[in-house]
Amino acid sequence: MQANERVRPLRVGVAGLGRLGRRHALNLAYRVPGAMLAAVCSPLDDDLAWAREAISEARQYRDYAELLADPAVDAVWLVTPSALHAQQIVAALYAGKHVFCEKPLSLDVAECERVVEEARRFPAQQVTIGFMRRFDSSYHDAFSKLRAGAIGRPFLVRSQTCDLNDPDGFFVRFAPGSGGIFLDCTVHDIDVARWLLGKPRATRVFAAGAVALHEGLLEFGDVDNGVAICEFEGGKLAMFYASRTMAHGNDTSSEVIGTAGALAIGHLPRSNRVEIYDAHGVRSECTPTFFDRFEEAFLIEAQAFVAAVRARRDGEAGVAEDAAASAGQGATLEDALEATRIGCALRESLRTGQAVTL
Amino acid sequence: MQANERVRPLRVGVAGLGRLGRRHALNLAYRVPGAMLAAVCSPLDDDLAWAREAISEARQYRDYAELLADPAVDAVWLVTPSALHAQQIVAALYAGKHVFCEKPLSLDVAECERVVEEARRFPAQQVTIGFMRRFDSSYHDAFSKLRAGAIGRPFLVRSQTCDLNDPDGFFVRFAPGSGGIFLDCTVHDIDVARWLLGKPRATRVFAAGAVALHEGLLEFGDVDNGVAICEFEGGKLAMFYASRTMAHGNDTSSEVIGTAGALAIGHLPRSNRVEIYDAHGVRSECTPTFFDRFEEAFLIEAQAFVAAVRARRDGEAGVAEDAAASAGQGATLEDALEATRIGCALRESLRTGQAVTL
Amino acid sequence: MQANERVRPLRVGVAGLGRLGRRHALNLAYRVPGAMLAAVCSPLDDDLAWAREAISEARQYRDYAELLADPAVDAVWLVTPSALHAQQIVAALYAGKHVFCEKPLSLDVAECERVVEEARRFPAQQVTIGFMRRFDSSYHDAFSKLRAGAIGRPFLVRSQTCDLNDPDGFFVRFAPGSGGIFLDCTVHDIDVARWLLGKPRATRVFAAGAVALHEGLLEFGDVDNGVAICEFEGGKLAMFYASRTMAHGNDTSSEVIGTAGALAIGHLPRSNRVEIYDAHGVRSECTPTFFDRFEEAFLIEAQAFVAAVRARRDGEAGVAEDAAASAGQGATLEDALEATRIGCALRESLRTGQAVTL
Amino acid sequence: MQANERVRPLRVGVAGLGRLGRRHALNLAYRVPGAMLAAVCSPLDDDLAWAREAISEARQYRDYAELLADPAVDAVWLVTPSALHAQQIVAALYAGKHVFCEKPLSLDVAECERVVEEARRFPAQQVTIGFMRRFDSSYHDAFSKLRAGAIGRPFLVRSQTCDLNDPDGFFVRFAPGSGGIFLDCTVHDIDVARWLLGKPRATRVFAAGAVALHEGLLEFGDVDNGVAICEFEGGKLAMFYASRTMAHGNDTSSEVIGTAGALAIGHLPRSNRVEIYDAHGVRSECTPTFFDRFEEAFLIEAQAFVAAVRARRDGEAGVAEDAAASAGQGATLEDALEATRIGCALRESLRTGQAVTL
Repeated sequence: MQANERVRPLRVGVAGLGRLGRRHALNLAYRVPGAMLAAVCSPLDDDLAWAREAISEARQYRDYAELLADPAVDAVWLVTPSALHAQQIVAALYAGKHVFCEKPLSLDVAECERVVEEARRFPAQQVTIGFMRRFDSSYHDAFSKLRAGAIGRPFLVRSQTCDLNDPDGFFVRFAPGSGGIFLDCTVHDIDVARWLLGKPRATRVFAAGAVALHEGLLEFGDVDNGVAICEFEGGKLAMFYASRTMAHGNDTSSEVIGTAGALAIGHLPRSNRVEIYDAHGVRSECTPTFFDRFEEAFLIEAQAFVAAVRARRDGEAGVAEDAAASAGQGATLEDALEATRIGCALRESLRTGQAVTL
Repeated sequence: MQANERVRPLRVGVAGLGRLGRRHALNLAYRVPGAMLAAVCSPLDDDLAWAREAISEARQYRDYAELLADPAVDAVWLVTPSALHAQQIVAALYAGKHVFCEKPLSLDVAECERVVEEARRFPAQQVTIGFMRRFDSSYHDAFSKLRAGAIGRPFLVRSQTCDLNDPDGFFVRFAPGSGGIFLDCTVHDIDVARWLLGKPRATRVFAAGAVALHEGLLEFGDVDNGVAICEFEGGKLAMFYASRTMAHGNDTSSEVIGTAGALAIGHLPRSNRVEIYDAHGVRSECTPTFFDRFEEAFLIEAQAFVAAVRARRDGEAGVAEDAAASAGQGATLEDALEATRIGCALRESLRTGQAVTL
Repeated sequence: MQANERVRPLRVGVAGLGRLGRRHALNLAYRVPGAMLAAVCSPLDDDLAWAREAISEARQYRDYAELLADPAVDAVWLVTPSALHAQQIVAALYAGKHVFCEKPLSLDVAECERVVEEARRFPAQQVTIGFMRRFDSSYHDAFSKLRAGAIGRPFLVRSQTCDLNDPDGFFVRFAPGSGGIFLDCTVHDIDVARWLLGKPRATRVFAAGAVALHEGLLEFGDVDNGVAICEFEGGKLAMFYASRTMAHGNDTSSEVIGTAGALAIGHLPRSNRVEIYDAHGVRSECTPTFFDRFEEAFLIEAQAFVAAVRARRDGEAGVAEDAAASAGQGATLEDALEATRIGCALRESLRTGQAVTL
Repeated sequence: MQANERVRPLRVGVAGLGRLGRRHALNLAYRVPGAMLAAVCSPLDDDLAWAREAISEARQYRDYAELLADPAVDAVWLVTPSALHAQQIVAALYAGKHVFCEKPLSLDVAECERVVEEARRFPAQQVTIGFMRRFDSSYHDAFSKLRAGAIGRPFLVRSQTCDLNDPDGFFVRFAPGSGGIFLDCTVHDIDVARWLLGKPRATRVFAAGAVALHEGLLEFGDVDNGVAICEFEGGKLAMFYASRTMAHGNDTSSEVIGTAGALAIGHLPRSNRVEIYDAHGVRSECTPTFFDRFEEAFLIEAQAFVAAVRARRDGEAGVAEDAAASAGQGATLEDALEATRIGCALRESLRTGQAVTL
């Protein structure tokens, strides 16, 4: 019976079937050992029609409450609008489900804190926030080398999230709800910096920005290019750059500098191993979007979550912790809270022109 | 019923469960939409024990004839010793199975020709030889650019297969049966060259070699580093390099040169997107083995084979051909025959010191 | 006679014969068409002994006043301690000499302003401050592409000056007089940023720092790693990084980002075109010092200065301005004043933890 | 007097003032310590007019015999048509001059041998053939690392000389006298291979070629793309590629592979340290011509020759040999003979389609 238990797959319900939600659903349906896609949930006809075709075995719900009520769902996977994340996580915890939720936890620090508080009541349930870079094989390799002492004591991270320019300025329409460039984009770099530097607390930040192309952002106090410095306790530092206006592709890279060396991840955002020699010189084409860049990371992230939950289920605490650790160190609610806290401080600094102390 | 037919998965039986066989089996079991791993076949207890644990749903056979007799197997997947490939392909065809077979088809040209001859009687059955580089995303991107005219008319391919040195010289023990460095390693480059140059026929070859480290090869007339030139009809050319003695990793790369540009695939065999800055300078670690380099290609190759068979089953010839084409252009028996023919000529040239005319 | 005049070389006197002074002296003696090294000046016996051997034709002075009194010296070349620069420039102008002076003009803004004021009285005399990066062929190529519109409107510069760690901490002893990391190192990046962005005025800066290895800096309020943001009028931005603790070499690089593309200069500080493939992976060794990196720039800088002075002498104003422009756009006193002004503001920000408005 | 002797410059006479001749003349006039450009020689009015303007101090001759008769010329520098090299070298030796001669020594093996024979009578005179790659700082760094054992025992060189396509096919008109692509281009790679492999003797070669664009070459038995293999004694190997039809620039690179690693020189022919990020991806522009690529090498080569002659003059044989060695190891007449011998064998192999034994 225990053996039977051990091999029972984790039954996952995905809420939200936009572009990224569909990717997660397909991964969980076909590519994550130990998981099965039990159900999906979306209020949109198009999404459900897509699901009937692509993942026909999954039960379908229009209402999140119905999904939570399904006893044959062990974990929910939230790929819903950011404004819903906090309340949906809490509801899922009360319904006894494990939770995977896409970033951000919330754009509001107080709300993040409430979720952290609530979650403390459910220590047996896994909650992971989807900072997928931690699962990218290159980021993970750098993290491992760092832990092994390859560059001495790390003290500075430089990290950037730069998107290919969208001439239609699609994101301008989402500016009111995105939280601005630092909460929307830099939040990934903040998480990377904390992760690579050993999760220090931020003490002071400064940010500045420019509108290079998308003047529609001005009315929301947002920018299409932002730069920032973050000071952490213990004399650690981070520099961030975010852009919506790259000409060459999605250029996401990070660098961690230590007392005995440095590691760069993603310098030159090559789309693959091809180089073109022609009248333009020698060139590499670039990853067009974060989807192309992190396609594999989304999969590994899902595999790690499932492994972590199964480790909890199977074993003693010690085993579970080990498994969770080796499962790739997904971001906790506390990590997500800190990322939002720093992102909000950056936004305030951008608006006031002053350094903000945390 | 047809719909039912359409969604029925392709039931595959894998023969041979060595390192690569296990990889194929796991891919087919968990990662290839439209396929199911119905059965496995190996004479070895260890292999079957592994299968009971890792892919427990698959039926198990010790004898290849039993696998062929299983009516609930649509296709066989041969990852058996090379010397068995030819006869096993023919037997599978007579048993009504589609066939995927790892390279090489055979080290003997006459035997390759017999298989080609036999296979003509079974036009409804798919036979693909596993030259996986065609399915690597970078090779595929280069091929697509080439077809789109990005570099004009291609006339020269340079391609290499270079393995990390194995101080134990494991491959020396296999030298008697490997066919030598050109049939074991360069055969991939030969296939790449023909594929990128439009499948021209070879007209003349020359080869030379050196024993850099593994003197045990001398008694078999083999070398641990080989270089070769191949002339094709229409004034096309290829240069090959194969090595067993690299210090930095598996360095597999190719380059195709055209009248208006060139495309290089895999220059600098970076293992990932990390760069290390330390007292050694700035460096990238390298892919240690062809497994690491082509892990994804083995999967895509399997997906393409399954898609090709399903396209045959579903559709009119035209559809099937299209699907097969878009499925990534796996190597046919004729391609495999030509690769062996050229590889044998290279071996002869190495032995005689003379150019060999085909 | 005019022809004779035209071919008369510019007679240069070099003051200061430390490591960099000797480099300049050798360049002027042997490698700058149109220049001759007429005299050298140093109070140190060792320096004069070196000069007797290496550049025996040059007259020798121990006292700067003597050099200025030499009527057969047209221009002075100041490679003296920074604290002397301002007064020596003014004295040279009053003595009727053209002046090339190594950076910085002065660490004190008011003193910089005095020199700018004084120099206005001598419009016929060339004064250039040695920001040699402007003459590096790669920086110059980027500047030309920028001017030609290759990347649209530039709005952000990222630039760094990172030195190989000196375990002996030689620079710690110089900390009291260096002005700190931003005035000593970042001043180059400030000049690069202003040059590439069209010489905008800075409006606000923020800086932070860390002591990674050299704790002796703490007593001087200095750091061995510093990061900074500088906002310019017109919504332009710069990010700076300076380090004394690199493990891999001197890593000086810059990047300018525009509305239609970006240009990076010096990513990966390769020392030359060699790549090493070995058990460490594939690597490039790095330029160990700024000397190695900018050896050629120091020469071109000298050639440009000489060309600029000769153009003034030969021609009408128009011609001279053109020549000066094409001569590579050396930094003016005003440029040097701005660099010091921004550098001082960064130092203040580092000390106060607050953004500083200019 | 000895001191006087020691500092007397080497008085050089340059014969031939085409594009490369002018470069050499300017280097010798202004940039080579210890040398002076004493005279130039050309039958062409244009060349002499250029010289009057650019290097007015040099005496002018129209006739090579006059140059040789000038007692105030210590060394001649031959940048004349290849067909004249052999006889001009011998004449210079009889006239008591040291000789620097551009490659090739001669396209005819017997003629090369005659020069070698004659030169044996003049052991006190320096004769160097201009294989400038040996003086390129990257090639030299690789050579030094090799000598220091960085890659174990070297056994394979891959080297290429690839020119940017000239749509006018200028070189087609010179095809009758160039000796074909292997004697014109690959001769550099042959010399590099022998130099890096320790000057082994070639034992067998094979070559093949293609006409990609310039069909006018067919009537001369020449090709615009050539590939070759060269076997040396001791089991050493080389692979060569030469092209006249590159789309991206002059792509000259070499690689030497040893038992413990490899060194690549010039992979990716970047023109400088700038990378361009735009809609084409990330790219480097390439060196357009060998002039741009090897500009500095021509200078160092000249400095090394002058240093070598001065070392002979100053010292005992031992010192001279050391100096010559450290001066960069220019190619001797014997090296040039071997390069021609191998180049001629490649041409024969191209014509016959057979391997050629030496």
